[in-house]
Amino acid sequence: MGLTIGVDIGGTKIAAGVVDEEGHILETHTVPTPPTADAIVDAICAAVEGAGKGHEIEAVGIGAAGYVDDKRATVLFAPNIHWRHEPLKDKVEQRVGLPVVVENDANAAAWGEYKFGAGQGHEDVICITLGTGLGGGIIIGNKLRRGRFGVAAEFGHIRVVPDGLLCGCGSQGCWEQYASGRALVRYARQRANATPENAEILLALGDGTIEGIEGKHISAAARQGDPVAVDSFRELARWAGAGLADLASLFDPSAFIVGGGVSDEGELVLDPIRKSFRRWLIGGQWRPHAQVLAAQLGNKAGLVGAADLARQG
Amino acid sequence: MGLTIGVDIGGTKIAAGVVDEEGHILETHTVPTPPTADAIVDAICAAVEGAGKGHEIEAVGIGAAGYVDDKRATVLFAPNIHWRHEPLKDKVEQRVGLPVVVENDANAAAWGEYKFGAGQGHEDVICITLGTGLGGGIIIGNKLRRGRFGVAAEFGHIRVVPDGLLCGCGSQGCWEQYASGRALVRYARQRANATPENAEILLALGDGTIEGIEGKHISAAARQGDPVAVDSFRELARWAGAGLADLASLFDPSAFIVGGGVSDEGELVLDPIRKSFRRWLIGGQWRPHAQVLAAQLGNKAGLVGAADLARQG
Amino acid sequence: MGLTIGVDIGGTKIAAGVVDEEGHILETHTVPTPPTADAIVDAICAAVEGAGKGHEIEAVGIGAAGYVDDKRATVLFAPNIHWRHEPLKDKVEQRVGLPVVVENDANAAAWGEYKFGAGQGHEDVICITLGTGLGGGIIIGNKLRRGRFGVAAEFGHIRVVPDGLLCGCGSQGCWEQYASGRALVRYARQRANATPENAEILLALGDGTIEGIEGKHISAAARQGDPVAVDSFRELARWAGAGLADLASLFDPSAFIVGGGVSDEGELVLDPIRKSFRRWLIGGQWRPHAQVLAAQLGNKAGLVGAADLARQG
Amino acid sequence: MGLTIGVDIGGTKIAAGVVDEEGHILETHTVPTPPTADAIVDAICAAVEGAGKGHEIEAVGIGAAGYVDDKRATVLFAPNIHWRHEPLKDKVEQRVGLPVVVENDANAAAWGEYKFGAGQGHEDVICITLGTGLGGGIIIGNKLRRGRFGVAAEFGHIRVVPDGLLCGCGSQGCWEQYASGRALVRYARQRANATPENAEILLALGDGTIEGIEGKHISAAARQGDPVAVDSFRELARWAGAGLADLASLFDPSAFIVGGGVSDEGELVLDPIRKSFRRWLIGGQWRPHAQVLAAQLGNKAGLVGAADLARQG
Repeated sequence: MGLTIGVDIGGTKIAAGVVDEEGHILETHTVPTPPTADAIVDAICAAVEGAGKGHEIEAVGIGAAGYVDDKRATVLFAPNIHWRHEPLKDKVEQRVGLPVVVENDANAAAWGEYKFGAGQGHEDVICITLGTGLGGGIIIGNKLRRGRFGVAAEFGHIRVVPDGLLCGCGSQGCWEQYASGRALVRYARQRANATPENAEILLALGDGTIEGIEGKHISAAARQGDPVAVDSFRELARWAGAGLADLASLFDPSAFIVGGGVSDEGELVLDPIRKSFRRWLIGGQWRPHAQVLAAQLGNKAGLVGAADLARQG
Repeated sequence: MGLTIGVDIGGTKIAAGVVDEEGHILETHTVPTPPTADAIVDAICAAVEGAGKGHEIEAVGIGAAGYVDDKRATVLFAPNIHWRHEPLKDKVEQRVGLPVVVENDANAAAWGEYKFGAGQGHEDVICITLGTGLGGGIIIGNKLRRGRFGVAAEFGHIRVVPDGLLCGCGSQGCWEQYASGRALVRYARQRANATPENAEILLALGDGTIEGIEGKHISAAARQGDPVAVDSFRELARWAGAGLADLASLFDPSAFIVGGGVSDEGELVLDPIRKSFRRWLIGGQWRPHAQVLAAQLGNKAGLVGAADLARQG
Repeated sequence: MGLTIGVDIGGTKIAAGVVDEEGHILETHTVPTPPTADAIVDAICAAVEGAGKGHEIEAVGIGAAGYVDDKRATVLFAPNIHWRHEPLKDKVEQRVGLPVVVENDANAAAWGEYKFGAGQGHEDVICITLGTGLGGGIIIGNKLRRGRFGVAAEFGHIRVVPDGLLCGCGSQGCWEQYASGRALVRYARQRANATPENAEILLALGDGTIEGIEGKHISAAARQGDPVAVDSFRELARWAGAGLADLASLFDPSAFIVGGGVSDEGELVLDPIRKSFRRWLIGGQWRPHAQVLAAQLGNKAGLVGAADLARQG
Repeated sequence: MGLTIGVDIGGTKIAAGVVDEEGHILETHTVPTPPTADAIVDAICAAVEGAGKGHEIEAVGIGAAGYVDDKRATVLFAPNIHWRHEPLKDKVEQRVGLPVVVENDANAAAWGEYKFGAGQGHEDVICITLGTGLGGGIIIGNKLRRGRFGVAAEFGHIRVVPDGLLCGCGSQGCWEQYASGRALVRYARQRANATPENAEILLALGDGTIEGIEGKHISAAARQGDPVAVDSFRELARWAGAGLADLASLFDPSAFIVGGGVSDEGELVLDPIRKSFRRWLIGGQWRPHAQVLAAQLGNKAGLVGAADLARQG
């Protein structure tokens, strides 16, 4: 096969990219994300048509946040867009006249990393995406594993603290409440509130208030050695690494790939994650250890992965 | 292929059984479990030879508690027997002159249930075994998934309570400390100690003391409505079901199979497990629910599963 | 001394009551609660003047939610009103021309129950108030214990779940997130969402939706045997009783008094609290057990207690 | 009054000391601790007689581990000695012919520190003793508070982790499982096992094995910067400080005194405890903070405190 298009649906813009068989993005077309569910379908089609112009495209892969059914056709539930049992595949196919595959966005990103990024050469890979929340994807035996009904790999919602923090999903103690960009901000704000004298760099980078602390400030402050910022990353890593140890007990992959905005900080976050992973890995002296690798494709992973999954039909 | 032998290594006896392609056990030979690691290898060989006499056997499958490597040849670590990097496949092949496959015992049991028991007709099945501890096995796409290094599906050791109970594995808060036969006894003893007037039936079934309460008493007392016994099963089910909900988030199988001694109680334990599973399942209204099924093969699952895995080479 | 006035500051109205030495309320004057901090001071004065008309009043006691300093003069911090280091005693004394004592409202209620309610005859009593949140008061040796700085007995904010639910105080895992009227509603909504077929009575009492479930519906439904409502009370009691066991380890009182709106349900909630208390009490067979009593004064406890504390100067 | 004798019952020896009104120990007499309960009573009497020879003694105070009744006469339950409802006061009075007061040993130590040690000048003090376990004592309004039945201040057994570690008391998640000398050793062993390369100093101080790590090694290693040892103290301090924050919410004292063997390390452990305390203190910006002070009397606190409590009759 030749070229396919991958679509990434973001909160502010929808990007469609023409991708070749080696995962290179030849061209990208971007449109703003409209406010309503129906308009988003239109915008996806417009982005695909815009990107595909002048290329011979064989298929389209769309990465969508939420539950996608096992036929990779229907979005059962989307947390941010009002899609409920939305027949996205059918709607887009009718409009753009190309075969369409719908995939969970974290699954698509996992596939992208496995195929063209940090996971190359591995057959069994678990990817986690530390963005605002925590998502992931499972590759076993060189195949993306979606579960019987399409909704596997919802890593962010395993319960790591009984009776723990409320989660947007309605449950409590979900992993993404403890290991995600949102958790990082909470850690920093709590610590800066308790000991502002240890957060001087951090507070100076924002507007000086606790509420003004954002993720980017924490990263910058941590690089400058701000104690609260460093400790906040360590807390995030404590939970991320302990969760990876659980995933090792379950999946025993040869590699974990850590992506998402939080992982952009590289070793600042990966090194403590590895330490925590090793601290909590069960039977560590009797088994080969999975590698914990940084993602390589950044925020292109989902688009490239979706395009490649579409290629495979 | 024709007949194969499956081996089950128990604490008091080692059983070898001749199994046909449909999972029927044609003959079983049993020997006592000796006390030393080397002697156990000898006993396995003796059991295999005893069972195979007069049959044309094509291969042998051995289910062993512990970590088994990805070549299904070496026991990396066994919790109860002093096997450390034990080349069990080679040793037994040399003695019995047949191809040997070594498999984790919970994996073998999972395969047995998938192929010949409660899992028939399902392609994606997660089995958990509630015995003294908690083990399990993963079938995805009709294949047993062992992980890259052979040690996947160690369900009993995912952390469900941070800073929780000490586990024999050296970690804390492992699932099997909260959902297993041993946990059930702890629940009953704690409750009987606090409120003996609610444990009259239970205490009368044993020797009248708290320490004398054993698993069998709890089952019998629960059937007679003893409040402490019923509540102990409910507590076990609370943790078992919540863990299954986590596994649904991760694996999204079409069925869970619950086996092991605890599950012999049938609906007494399965019904509250199903309720707890449903209580904690994430996004339950937007997705098809996995079934929670009782295992069908009882304590034969491991032997039959090991034999069948050997057949497949 | 003769008559004193107690003031109760509620969310919708401020009540001032003339109270005699035996805790009887002779007359009450009520004004609406205004929206601003300064206006509330005015309203308190107006209520006091209204109630006192025609009586010879010797002192005024005001119960206020929040931190009150050790001089019982200044509200250091109020959670619902914008009072920060508010010199409430001075302001009200200047206006009404009577000696004023300011007291934390849960302390005042505890004193009321100790002196005129369920605590009569006890020298060492711990009161907890299960209202929207969870407050309390400590009586040791027949004296209200306020701590060195006036802010003792903040029971609602001891940490019962590490990394637990966010609390309005900025911390996590506070007891009042698990044992309070607000917690009860959360329990019921979560359970009704997961298993609506077990919440038919409960849902029918409200508007049929999960979000429409309120505390009063849960009480009514529990009395009719609705499984979700009963289980929600049991969950609340589990946490309340376990916390009382902790307080017994710390204070070893002869009685606990449970007040607040949740306790209006009487044995429906007290009986499971007692069971849970007994379940978690340390060394229960070697020590006398504290009684767990229902409060007797209802929502008058704070007013009566504040008046009596003012009498004592 | 003049001189009194205080008795400290240790695991290997029983010490009786003659103490003056200013808390000075004039003379000490020590006998080995015998193995049986009755023989220990004899040994206590012998120690008292030995110490008192040549002094005019007015009373005897005995500090005993366990529950002591409200009359300070009977040991209701002792964890290490087989005393159950043991009338220790009567037995010793008959033998030594002096008034005897029996007190919980941690209460006695708290009183010693309050009266002659770090607590001088404070009216409201909470002492915690971080020894093998965790004990404590409560002083409010310049009086030792023993609870209605004599068994208050059992700090070590408040539940800080639901479903947490098993405790010798039969419960789970008790504070002393997370903040005590025994917990410190567990932390160090777990960490050294997971990352031995970070415990080289620590392991070299012992016999090189994980099991050989003892408390004294951890202290020495932490002073030399061993990462595992430092981190183990930090973990201990995390739990100790969070617990103090809970006690501040409850008691609001002007000072906490931290004693026991673990506190012998001084700022190595106190500094992180203070940080953790401040981190978890509720409403820290709106209230005066209690001081966190190191105990001053070392292992003499109990003896001196018991002697002084006897003086007060």
